[in-house]
Amino acid sequence: MDILKSVDLVKKANIYFDGNVTSRSFVDSNGEDKSLGIMMPGEYNFGTNAAELMEILDGEVEVKLAGSDTWNTYTADTSFDVPANSSFDIKVKTITDYCCSYIK
Amino acid sequence: MDILKSVDLVKKANIYFDGNVTSRSFVDSNGEDKSLGIMMPGEYNFGTNAAELMEILDGEVEVKLAGSDTWNTYTADTSFDVPANSSFDIKVKTITDYCCSYIK
Repeated sequence: MDILKSVDLVKKANIYFDGNVTSRSFVDSNGEDKSLGIMMPGEYNFGTNAAELMEILDGEVEVKLAGSDTWNTYTADTSFDVPANSSFDIKVKTITDYCCSYIK
Repeated sequence: MDILKSVDLVKKANIYFDGNVTSRSFVDSNGEDKSLGIMMPGEYNFGTNAAELMEILDGEVEVKLAGSDTWNTYTADTSFDVPANSSFDIKVKTITDYCCSYIK
């Protein structure tokens, strides 16, 4: 079982798209801003401020980055990068568990 | 903003009722087992092993403990206790954010 040791965890949830996407923000022991979240099946668009590393812990998604015409599929234990000040479209095929790292 | 300092956070989500209830387990800095979760509107039944303290962070639920005929309403900043080795029925009226403490 993968346990993130000694993190500072924000108690209240982040709730998006009427609860179809929810997450918990935390700062890890290296001072990195991250969140753990759940996406229910559906299609969403997310904007970024900082660049993001999206790790898929479980589930299946298709992702199209802003400015691209290509949809790429990601499943458990794969990840994708999103540039800063950009956005991505995501088609969530099955309930998806993810970890997002905000890159300083 | 309420931040839980220095917790050990399990990375993978707990997913119940086809994703309508999801949570993240962690051990707080006092060694207490807890979870932060989200319940989508609907009706659910949960069993308990250890006794539980359920804190409603946001949202509205009605709860009926096993052996009781009474439904009680809980909203943000209220909580209810569930005995060990028992269960409770819950009607989730709005998307509900909660913290569950497992009492040793």
